[in-house]
Amino acid sequence: MADFENCVSCSSSPLELFERVTAQGEKVRSLKAGKASTDEIDAAVKLLLSLKVNYKTATGQDYKAGSPPVDFSPISNNGPTTIQDEDFVDPWTVQTSNAKGVDYDKLIVRFGSSKIDKELINRIERITGKTPHHFLRRGIFFSHRDMNQILDAYENKKPFYLYTGRGPSSEAMHVGHLIPFIFTKWLQEVFNVPLVIQLTDDEKYLWKDLTIQKACEYAIENAKDIIACGFDINKTFIFSDLDYLGMSSGFYKNVVKIQKHVTFNQVKGIFGFTDSDCIGKISFPAIQAAPSFSSSFPQIFKDKKDIQCLIPCAIDQDPYFRMTRDVAPRIGYLKPALLHSIFFPALQGAQTKMSASDPNSSIFLTDTPKQIKTKINKHAFSGGKDTIEEHRKYGGNCEVDVSYMYLTFFVEDDDKLEKMKQAYTSGALLTGELKKVLIETLQPLIAAHQQRRKQITDEMVKQFMTPRKLAFDF
Amino acid sequence: MADFENCVSCSSSPLELFERVTAQGEKVRSLKAGKASTDEIDAAVKLLLSLKVNYKTATGQDYKAGSPPVDFSPISNNGPTTIQDEDFVDPWTVQTSNAKGVDYDKLIVRFGSSKIDKELINRIERITGKTPHHFLRRGIFFSHRDMNQILDAYENKKPFYLYTGRGPSSEAMHVGHLIPFIFTKWLQEVFNVPLVIQLTDDEKYLWKDLTIQKACEYAIENAKDIIACGFDINKTFIFSDLDYLGMSSGFYKNVVKIQKHVTFNQVKGIFGFTDSDCIGKISFPAIQAAPSFSSSFPQIFKDKKDIQCLIPCAIDQDPYFRMTRDVAPRIGYLKPALLHSIFFPALQGAQTKMSASDPNSSIFLTDTPKQIKTKINKHAFSGGKDTIEEHRKYGGNCEVDVSYMYLTFFVEDDDKLEKMKQAYTSGALLTGELKKVLIETLQPLIAAHQQRRKQITDEMVKQFMTPRKLAFDF
Repeated sequence: MADFENCVSCSSSPLELFERVTAQGEKVRSLKAGKASTDEIDAAVKLLLSLKVNYKTATGQDYKAGSPPVDFSPISNNGPTTIQDEDFVDPWTVQTSNAKGVDYDKLIVRFGSSKIDKELINRIERITGKTPHHFLRRGIFFSHRDMNQILDAYENKKPFYLYTGRGPSSEAMHVGHLIPFIFTKWLQEVFNVPLVIQLTDDEKYLWKDLTIQKACEYAIENAKDIIACGFDINKTFIFSDLDYLGMSSGFYKNVVKIQKHVTFNQVKGIFGFTDSDCIGKISFPAIQAAPSFSSSFPQIFKDKKDIQCLIPCAIDQDPYFRMTRDVAPRIGYLKPALLHSIFFPALQGAQTKMSASDPNSSIFLTDTPKQIKTKINKHAFSGGKDTIEEHRKYGGNCEVDVSYMYLTFFVEDDDKLEKMKQAYTSGALLTGELKKVLIETLQPLIAAHQQRRKQITDEMVKQFMTPRKLAFDF
Repeated sequence: MADFENCVSCSSSPLELFERVTAQGEKVRSLKAGKASTDEIDAAVKLLLSLKVNYKTATGQDYKAGSPPVDFSPISNNGPTTIQDEDFVDPWTVQTSNAKGVDYDKLIVRFGSSKIDKELINRIERITGKTPHHFLRRGIFFSHRDMNQILDAYENKKPFYLYTGRGPSSEAMHVGHLIPFIFTKWLQEVFNVPLVIQLTDDEKYLWKDLTIQKACEYAIENAKDIIACGFDINKTFIFSDLDYLGMSSGFYKNVVKIQKHVTFNQVKGIFGFTDSDCIGKISFPAIQAAPSFSSSFPQIFKDKKDIQCLIPCAIDQDPYFRMTRDVAPRIGYLKPALLHSIFFPALQGAQTKMSASDPNSSIFLTDTPKQIKTKINKHAFSGGKDTIEEHRKYGGNCEVDVSYMYLTFFVEDDDKLEKMKQAYTSGALLTGELKKVLIETLQPLIAAHQQRRKQITDEMVKQFMTPRKLAFDF
């Protein structure tokens, strides 16, 4: 599971865009010639590809080296400043020029998934008899594939299981990384189903400048934070790829099955791989796909090959599972269902880059109360006005205010949130006051997480990560 | 291990030649782009140059990229049959137009390996105190990489291990498939070292129209034939990839390490993969490379990462190990050493295709004495003359006579073989008589193999294939 990243990409004239593509092409070549780090080259290639897309959007023509745009006909006629850059979303890059963040409605259309609408949320409530999680009520999980099939199965007493994961790229996890786990825990409790959690330490070794050993260590450290979310040890199997592949009689067989049915052309199209990418990256998508099939876990599902899988994840992971769903019927397996979340914004705003290497871009699970306070006060992008007078008069803008966005994730009480929104929008609540609410929400939440994490022993991690039967009979 | 195949490519049309030059040019470019080793690039460039010469010989024109031959006038007037093609050797295709078979001296130059010369054979004899195997004496194992390093290690009482393998594409193995195993068994006995034997059932699943289950079954059946060669169960570990990958704490980690250090450009250059190939094929070379490193077998070598490996194999497998040797120092491992054998000829002649699906192309390990007799009498290409009178007068040609070639593999006694050669060459020995010698050599040999194979129980196979410590302390 790759972490998402948001970066700015503003609007420019076709000639400027042409020059940027050319310059970026030059940069990629010189990085390669200079034997730059894989990360660096990757990032440059990704940017090159998205610049080419922008260029085509702006001019209606493919970029051709040495041929600056002439007589171009922009798809939009409102002139270069209004060129609407498409948001760019893949497992490694999330780009948008909009301070409100990615346009998720457009993404649903582009990815071909379905919106989680009121009707679906009502059905979940009806079937489970539980109040839908606030992530559902507030559109934080906003998109799905085949969720109705899962609910049909549940109604018919047919089993299913949950699968989510994380790419352990560092010891440090931030609050945004908790979102899929908080929601998955709720799903597990509500539906009472087995859960498998994949730690893609192999992916992080392949993509980053890490040793195998370091990637394994990060996997263990991340597992502790995940366990601290409160998963039931009798219903949850956590595994690191680098370990579990060498322990499972089913996993590698499924990996090879998937790898036989996906060509380089396909992964090139889906993930933007190039001929210069290592063969590990090229074949990795099969590793993330394999846990979608119950036969990858014979210790849990015995010989059952037809237990349906439901995957809660951030929408940037969807390319992996589009591929998985394409392959599934061709190898005799069920397509996994999906629930997609929006991205967790960086403190600096929904369109800026959140980076594990920049401690100020988010609240980390290791932050002290003081660090939390300082970061929010200093870095959380405000939708408020410049002066108190103006703010009182015109009110703040919740749509771009990061403190408010964070509160939608962490304040469960709808009324409380709605009142804050009204007060902030009307100008009654000042930015400093809103930030104070967020600080006082996150401080105890993070402290409690740290407290729970401290209780997690190596023995417990080992138990969670031991292939074994769970508290379900198959 | 892909099986080798010999196919005819006697005469190619100018257009075919043009396409081969183009493809080879493509290969050279991608090798360079992929930063392949100098050896690899040199070999590819040499082949490109000679293909260009062939093209000019055939068409009277210089090769020009993008301009297929039109209105060509061959320099030779004897028609396309005299076009001298270079031999083509990779793990899936062996092509030669020469009835004597591939030109192995040229192959050594092209692959950049070293000839196994008298001096090396003498050194082996001196160090081990054993008569060198007739496969060495007769140039059946004719080429090597770093064999002197292995002998240095042996002299210094440093351990090494043997690694060979087989691609289980069907139940039926033929006598040619035994060659690497017969020789490996001799090496194991002479040097008293551990041996690992890889059955690439994953490769066969990826390349052929096989189910996973069928590939696993073939692996077991082939293991029985291999065990029947007489390997020491206390010193030999046989494994199927589809099983062992899910049982080893070291194997997958090495696979990922290798996969991180090889690009698509490189495997494209080495193996000729295209964008339409599945990602399983593209990443497979790392699976065949991994057993070259002792850390892939922690149950045998504990935590020792620096036990040198010696790989006896047919020369068509060299591309895998050129790649492995290129990667090894970059991931902190020793380069494996190699001993290369020539190809075992098809009954129809050294330049024809030997195919497991054509029962008449070779002697199978399941053939009855009668089948052996019929096949040899009917299909073994003869270097004798058309009539007895002519044969008596001019003698036979051992260089193209398949019965004689087979005898060089299976008659251990040098004097006996030499006498037969002289008698056949002089015309004293007739083709029928030579064939009779071969029949009477192979019948008891195959019968004894079948007898030994019958004794192999499923329990023994299971023991050989159980990851375990061998009779060596590391």
